[in-house]
Amino acid sequence: MGPGPSDVHPRILEALSRPTIGHLDPAFVGMMEQTKALLQYAFQTENALTMPVSAPGSAGMETCFANLVEPGDKVIVCQNGVFGGRMKENVERCGGTPVMVEDDWGTAVDLQKVEETLETNPDAKILAFVHAETSTGAQSDAKELVALAHAHDCLTIVDAVTSLGGTPIKVDEWEIDSIYSGTQKCLSCTPGISPISFSERALEKVRNRSGKVQSWFLDLNLVMGYWGSGQKRAYHHTAPVNALYGLHESLRILEEEGLENAWARHRKIHLALKAGLEAMGLTFIVDEAHRLPQLNAVSIPEGVDDAAVRGRLLNEYNLEIGAGLGALAGKVWRIGLMGHSARAKNVLLCVGALEAVLSDMGAPINTGVTLAAVQKALQA
Amino acid sequence: MGPGPSDVHPRILEALSRPTIGHLDPAFVGMMEQTKALLQYAFQTENALTMPVSAPGSAGMETCFANLVEPGDKVIVCQNGVFGGRMKENVERCGGTPVMVEDDWGTAVDLQKVEETLETNPDAKILAFVHAETSTGAQSDAKELVALAHAHDCLTIVDAVTSLGGTPIKVDEWEIDSIYSGTQKCLSCTPGISPISFSERALEKVRNRSGKVQSWFLDLNLVMGYWGSGQKRAYHHTAPVNALYGLHESLRILEEEGLENAWARHRKIHLALKAGLEAMGLTFIVDEAHRLPQLNAVSIPEGVDDAAVRGRLLNEYNLEIGAGLGALAGKVWRIGLMGHSARAKNVLLCVGALEAVLSDMGAPINTGVTLAAVQKALQA
Repeated sequence: MGPGPSDVHPRILEALSRPTIGHLDPAFVGMMEQTKALLQYAFQTENALTMPVSAPGSAGMETCFANLVEPGDKVIVCQNGVFGGRMKENVERCGGTPVMVEDDWGTAVDLQKVEETLETNPDAKILAFVHAETSTGAQSDAKELVALAHAHDCLTIVDAVTSLGGTPIKVDEWEIDSIYSGTQKCLSCTPGISPISFSERALEKVRNRSGKVQSWFLDLNLVMGYWGSGQKRAYHHTAPVNALYGLHESLRILEEEGLENAWARHRKIHLALKAGLEAMGLTFIVDEAHRLPQLNAVSIPEGVDDAAVRGRLLNEYNLEIGAGLGALAGKVWRIGLMGHSARAKNVLLCVGALEAVLSDMGAPINTGVTLAAVQKALQA
Repeated sequence: MGPGPSDVHPRILEALSRPTIGHLDPAFVGMMEQTKALLQYAFQTENALTMPVSAPGSAGMETCFANLVEPGDKVIVCQNGVFGGRMKENVERCGGTPVMVEDDWGTAVDLQKVEETLETNPDAKILAFVHAETSTGAQSDAKELVALAHAHDCLTIVDAVTSLGGTPIKVDEWEIDSIYSGTQKCLSCTPGISPISFSERALEKVRNRSGKVQSWFLDLNLVMGYWGSGQKRAYHHTAPVNALYGLHESLRILEEEGLENAWARHRKIHLALKAGLEAMGLTFIVDEAHRLPQLNAVSIPEGVDDAAVRGRLLNEYNLEIGAGLGALAGKVWRIGLMGHSARAKNVLLCVGALEAVLSDMGAPINTGVTLAAVQKALQA
């Protein structure tokens, strides 16, 4: 129950151990086509370039920046947590100029500040932001941010690592230009693969670059020779065959449940966790309107030893919860309810174990009331 | 029996399906340390920076180039197949200037040409070459190439994607500065991970760069915060946990067999395949002195339909062999005997199926003599 990897469904673990076949085998190519279609469903898009990058989410982020940012491009980057900072690094390393819009960690991106920054930077080419900040648990308004960007003739790069499959993302309806995610969050797959989707408008910029993409491995002009829909697949790199068996299975599970049902489940299980934690007296750092159901950042009570609590949860209850990152290190715990982890039994385990450990360590919490609060929320 | 992925050992498939734990879990960190030590054994090195990159071999290649090549650096690149060309692309995309040493596909890198090029380019910083060309089956003399480079004050980047675990590589004894490999060849693991090793001398160049590494994801200065040996692991990216279970298991299998025994097995099984193919009248494109045991490039007999033969092998015998790449497309088949695929039963299947399909298609081959030739070689 950390910030990802989440619990992996047994069907996915089984899929990973299927015999490895060649990355150009017709049977494998058939599975690639299915995977692309299932990802289109997950992203709610008809974008032809919707595919998994053969590396973790950080490489998905770099795929977006390395392909879309050209040297000299001005890129407006919203930062309200760790991953906006990583976006800034990406812009700089691609030779672009980042213009930062900073918001407090734990808050959503401020639309008005973004609009002002777009207005004062009419030469900006791209707006980049994190939809669901894994480091804080805050969700920003992707639809409105994209609308603002387009009103100022900017393309958008959207980080959906933690949101895909957990809260609504509608790539086509919201007119997102490029987006990346990870497999190890609400898709409940193993880490190591990054689904991406690029609109025709974004691809236009990639095709018309004046210079080559600085990464050979991530150059979409080359990758599409293998992942594109032509009859002939050109070898680019050797695909991570078994990891893609896992992703394929995880997307089938998502399709069987239905996206809307998955979103509703994440919300319901989050409300149960919230009820238990609040009954104990713990508080969230994100205001209710912007709180992610799948990533719960909880303030560590005064005087409580962060590492000691996490160590005891791991050793005594076989339960991992996440530490704070960056500015929030030592100040919050991050409790993930992602994908297959978003289940009633996990909420019971987590609040029960936290109550036991915190009360044993003399922390100032309410005891004996959490279980009833969780049960009530689950029955609501 | 293509050019990789090779057959994956059942123990590795089983390892892949173990429950996913967190990438910062102490149990996982312990496995990371073991994996680094096992990779040091496989590479025959004590280099502290010996670790798996979380992406396929192409990303391992890019890790070497992106970290070591600075804008303006002159890099001598040896090309005798597909992968030298990819190295050239990497140099250019890193802002370096490639100086090419070209040799015919199917031959080894010519030491004299390399020496002359080093002499006429005293300002060159790096020599890059492919130890075992997967596209042709030719092996070059890594030890001598490194010695030449060092005599001219150049660092070396060595592609050992297909050699690691199949033919001798001695990173420390040969004084290789940086090297990358893949998991899906002679380690018989699933594709998707790239083992690398950097010497202290190479790391010195990385640390003293005047600008940042252009890839955030592959920047070793950052990656080492997670994979380094300090007590505290800093999150960089989410490691591909299950894929690393697989790599760890594959390296344990290699250690159990012993590197020297693995090299000898690859050679013995190659000689059996060679005996069968030659008895049939087929010929290798690489001369015997530079032939890789694990990658057998065989000329397609005149008038034989390449794709039809490979299609029948796949559909009738469930056997994949590789097509030619680049200049060799349509001219050769590439038969892999890598890792767990390097077994007597595979040789029998391959020569038997090839004989059946080719004779049925009326190709000019000898029939009825291959089995005895294979058996004789296996008993030698």
